Amino acid sequence: MEAPNAPQQTDVSDIGEFGLIAVMRDTLGPSSDDDLVSGIGDDTAVYRVGNGRVHLLTTDALTEGIHFDRAFMPMEHLGFKALSVNVSDVVAMNAAPRYATVTIGLSQNVTVEMVETIYEGVREACDAYDLTVVGGDTTSAHALSLSVTVVGEADEDAVVHRSGAQVGDKLCVTGDVGASYAGLKVLARNRRRMEEQGEDFQPSLDPYSYVIRRHLAPPAQLKTVRDWAAASVQPHALIDVSDGVASEVHHVCEASDVGAQLYEPALPIDPETRNTATDFGDDVSVYALFGGEDYELIFTIPEEGLDGIDPQSYTVIGDIVEPDDPEYPVLLQRADGENVPLQPGGFDHFDEDA
Amino acid sequence: MEAPNAPQQTDVSDIGEFGLIAVMRDTLGPSSDDDLVSGIGDDTAVYRVGNGRVHLLTTDALTEGIHFDRAFMPMEHLGFKALSVNVSDVVAMNAAPRYATVTIGLSQNVTVEMVETIYEGVREACDAYDLTVVGGDTTSAHALSLSVTVVGEADEDAVVHRSGAQVGDKLCVTGDVGASYAGLKVLARNRRRMEEQGEDFQPSLDPYSYVIRRHLAPPAQLKTVRDWAAASVQPHALIDVSDGVASEVHHVCEASDVGAQLYEPALPIDPETRNTATDFGDDVSVYALFGGEDYELIFTIPEEGLDGIDPQSYTVIGDIVEPDDPEYPVLLQRADGENVPLQPGGFDHFDEDA
Repeated sequence: MEAPNAPQQTDVSDIGEFGLIAVMRDTLGPSSDDDLVSGIGDDTAVYRVGNGRVHLLTTDALTEGIHFDRAFMPMEHLGFKALSVNVSDVVAMNAAPRYATVTIGLSQNVTVEMVETIYEGVREACDAYDLTVVGGDTTSAHALSLSVTVVGEADEDAVVHRSGAQVGDKLCVTGDVGASYAGLKVLARNRRRMEEQGEDFQPSLDPYSYVIRRHLAPPAQLKTVRDWAAASVQPHALIDVSDGVASEVHHVCEASDVGAQLYEPALPIDPETRNTATDFGDDVSVYALFGGEDYELIFTIPEEGLDGIDPQSYTVIGDIVEPDDPEYPVLLQRADGENVPLQPGGFDHFDEDA
Repeated sequence: MEAPNAPQQTDVSDIGEFGLIAVMRDTLGPSSDDDLVSGIGDDTAVYRVGNGRVHLLTTDALTEGIHFDRAFMPMEHLGFKALSVNVSDVVAMNAAPRYATVTIGLSQNVTVEMVETIYEGVREACDAYDLTVVGGDTTSAHALSLSVTVVGEADEDAVVHRSGAQVGDKLCVTGDVGASYAGLKVLARNRRRMEEQGEDFQPSLDPYSYVIRRHLAPPAQLKTVRDWAAASVQPHALIDVSDGVASEVHHVCEASDVGAQLYEPALPIDPETRNTATDFGDDVSVYALFGGEDYELIFTIPEEGLDGIDPQSYTVIGDIVEPDDPEYPVLLQRADGENVPLQPGGFDHFDEDA
């Protein structure tokens, strides 16, 4: 039905996700709200509510066929994960979650029992993260989806943005990375085999239980920021690992106008993640750097600031430096000693044979 | 792939939307948050932020093929409407909107220019409602969708719930009702004719410009609650007309434990809405009572409270009464004088030939 003189239309893939965020910023214009601390562009929005306190607002959805595959996503885990990914954004501002709304998009093949099980996972997340679901809705949808909004709370001067990294800071990550992507590889392979072999297929999940769990029900690192608060530790910059370590370090460098030197051998990788990569004939560093969905925290902090933190809870993976070449702000020293520019990469650099 | 001994599965339609909300409440359990004023079940959640102020939180999405038809929904109106329906929920608590997040779900055939136009509609709504978009995202989706969260603000003692109606109150509605459904009927007929006649079809929109606009770009009644505040008027109960007058009056009666006597001839209906119903051979009261998507406000207030309100801005459509029969809390006096029980009804009672 397009008219012959219809204006030129541009494919969304031509400008990408960050191009679309720029379109949004440009079209909406600057904010005139005096209480707004930060709007579009950080992990969450931040606005003052009085008495030196701020609220943080974030929203994110998981949609069947795009963010998860119903064939291997238990409904309880789906409810838990939908909360986790939003709580992780709040935690990535050094804040704690308070309230959530949960909207379930119901496709025709969703039953009441499935909805109940999703809510059980949501309740589990509420208990784990000490937050309250204050609103919710169900709506018809083309595919099963969970759309969650979380409101967090913090002292204004406790909030840590991605833009605070300083030259000389240590670059650190909590926990381990790459496991979620390893889990996804295993689940996708099981699915393929099930399609080939039918009901006879008995997946061997035991050797992969950790990586599968990391993919299906990743915890947000609320305990970490609580421990920091108790020890009066405050990083300079903070971001959570949703898209992958390489991508997040680029976000920090761009927002902070600094560079980073990463050390490949320092990346914290669980033995099960290594074994999975070996099984698939993959380079495990690719999982760790570009896999994403780890929901660990990347933070930068002066070396002396690390004294207050449990050394078991984090790994130093690099240094914040003056960038040599602004086009390549992030360098990776490989295991063989070679120092190479690192791209945000993500899945573009993957051998997509999963 | 269902196992032979799979537990009994219940179809969602067996328990309906309100059944699902009950499942949510039951599964999640009661809240222990001391700052929470109201959670699941009102137009928005309400929680204290200090100094006697509360914030209000609501979220709602519009999805192609379910809530709108791209063939007759201009993208700018889509952006505006997605904000309006959420602002309307905040206004329905006698509060004003402050912040919003906007997530666009992109299906494959959505272009950058369409996204720009959607944001232009969003910006128009920001200007109209004096709110700031503080976060946003784009995500892949099976169908074009706009998911919006709005945070509102008010003095705690200014908030009006749906549960405050008292016997003796006047039952009132702002503006006029039924126009949005009339507009939908015209648009659906145009679409059918375009499919039949192809590009030769020239829709005659002029006689329907008001009802079409009411459907595509309904305004939220923020001015009304601002005028009330300026005149120190505070209704006892308040709700917005999203599902239809009959449904909303039932919500007020159930939450307030009262009954209502409605008067059919009093329903405020625009002449264009009447003409549209006549064109289609429909009873215009059906549009007014069950059509929905009017985003007008229904409120209950003692008669003397009406003195402070511009008489042009509302219509008295009934009285709050002791219910005769708790099973039928709402009665409708028809034009012929007969008094009949009114059902929440909505589209179940429609002749769906649109």
